[in-house]
Amino acid sequence: MKSYREQLWFETKTRRAYLNITRQVEAVVKKSEIREGLALVNAMHITASVYINDDEQGLLQDYDEFLERLAPYQVHYRHNDTGEDNGDAHLKRQLMGREVVVAITEGKLDFGPWEQIFYGEFDGCRRKRVLVKVIGE
Amino acid sequence: MKSYREQLWFETKTRRAYLNITRQVEAVVKKSEIREGLALVNAMHITASVYINDDEQGLLQDYDEFLERLAPYQVHYRHNDTGEDNGDAHLKRQLMGREVVVAITEGKLDFGPWEQIFYGEFDGCRRKRVLVKVIGE
Amino acid sequence: MKSYREQLWFETKTRRAYLNITRQVEAVVKKSEIREGLALVNAMHITASVYINDDEQGLLQDYDEFLERLAPYQVHYRHNDTGEDNGDAHLKRQLMGREVVVAITEGKLDFGPWEQIFYGEFDGCRRKRVLVKVIGE
Repeated sequence: MKSYREQLWFETKTRRAYLNITRQVEAVVKKSEIREGLALVNAMHITASVYINDDEQGLLQDYDEFLERLAPYQVHYRHNDTGEDNGDAHLKRQLMGREVVVAITEGKLDFGPWEQIFYGEFDGCRRKRVLVKVIGE
Repeated sequence: MKSYREQLWFETKTRRAYLNITRQVEAVVKKSEIREGLALVNAMHITASVYINDDEQGLLQDYDEFLERLAPYQVHYRHNDTGEDNGDAHLKRQLMGREVVVAITEGKLDFGPWEQIFYGEFDGCRRKRVLVKVIGE
Repeated sequence: MKSYREQLWFETKTRRAYLNITRQVEAVVKKSEIREGLALVNAMHITASVYINDDEQGLLQDYDEFLERLAPYQVHYRHNDTGEDNGDAHLKRQLMGREVVVAITEGKLDFGPWEQIFYGEFDGCRRKRVLVKVIGE
C-alpha cells in the first residue's frame, strides 16, 4: 500500500466563498502515482467545508442563500460570547459537510459527469488549509 | 492491497424516492473477495444521495417532508434560470449527503443492528448511477 | 495492508448529548500500530452522529438549539406512529452526519488546529456504539 499527503492553502477575499478545487486535487492524485484507491479531501478548519456538487454560478448563490436562511450570520450565538463572530460558520459547515472521499480508478478521480470538488468557506479572509490524503497502490 | 469497483444503476418512477440498496452493496462486497477494508458508496450524480438510516416507511415520509420543508421544489432558485427545474434537488442532496464509507470486517459490511444503505433520489425518472469502490485485502 | 477494529460504547445521562471522543479514537489509532492510512469513525446507531468540530460549550448549545429548531422533538412524525418517540433523532442525525474519515499520518490523527471528534447523541440514556476501523500500514 502507498500513501501520499498534501495540503492545499486558500485565502478568500470574501467572508463566504465557494471555490472549485477539482484541478488541485487531480494534481495531487497524479503526484501520488496511486492507480487504485481512495482520496480523502477534508477541510482542516471547522468553519469550512469540502463538498461535491455542480460548478454553476446560480447554484452557488442558491447554496449561499440557503445556508444564510438556515443559519444566519446576524443572530445571537452563544459561541460568539467567546469574542468570536463565526457561530453561523460552524453551523453552515455542518450542513455542507467536512470532507469527501473519492474513488481513484486507473489513476484518476472516479467521477460522474458533473461532480466537482468545492471548498466552501464560511469565515474567510485568512489563510486556511485543505488536506488531501491518498491511499492505494 | 486489492480493490474492486462496480456501478449500480437506478431509475425511479417518481421524482423523489428512497431505495434500500443494502443487498446490492453486499453483493458487490462479496464479489470483491475483500475480507478487511473499506467500502465507499457514493452517488455519481449531484441531485442524489447515498445515506445510512432505518428502513421504515413512516421515516422515509418524514425525511421527504423534512427535505421539502427546508428546500421546497416550488420556489425560485437561480439555478433554475439555466432551464433546469432541479435547484431544490441540489440542496436536498447536500442535506442528506453524497456518500457513505462502511467498514468491511470478515468479508461483510460491519453494521450496527438497524443500519441500511439508501439511495435518495431527488430528481428521478431517468437512469442514474451509484459507485461502489472497495479496497482492502 | 493492515487493519484494526474496535468499538467504543457510550451511555449518555441525557436524551441529547455531545461528547468529545478524540482521546478514545487516538488510543485506538495507537493500538492499531498503523502509521499511514485512514480511520473511519461512525455511529453504529441511526439516531446518533459522529462529527468533527470545536469543543466549545457555547457552540455545543448552539448546535443543540439549531437541531431542535430544524427538527423539533415535539411535533408529529410518522415514524413515531410505530410506537417510537425518536423521529426527530433520525432527522437530527442526518443533519450532523453518520461518520468521519480521518487521515493517519506518522501514526497520528492528521488534524487541523481545532478539529475534535464528537459523538452526537439524539436518543440517549441507553448503551450505544461507535465503530473505529483503521486501515493502512
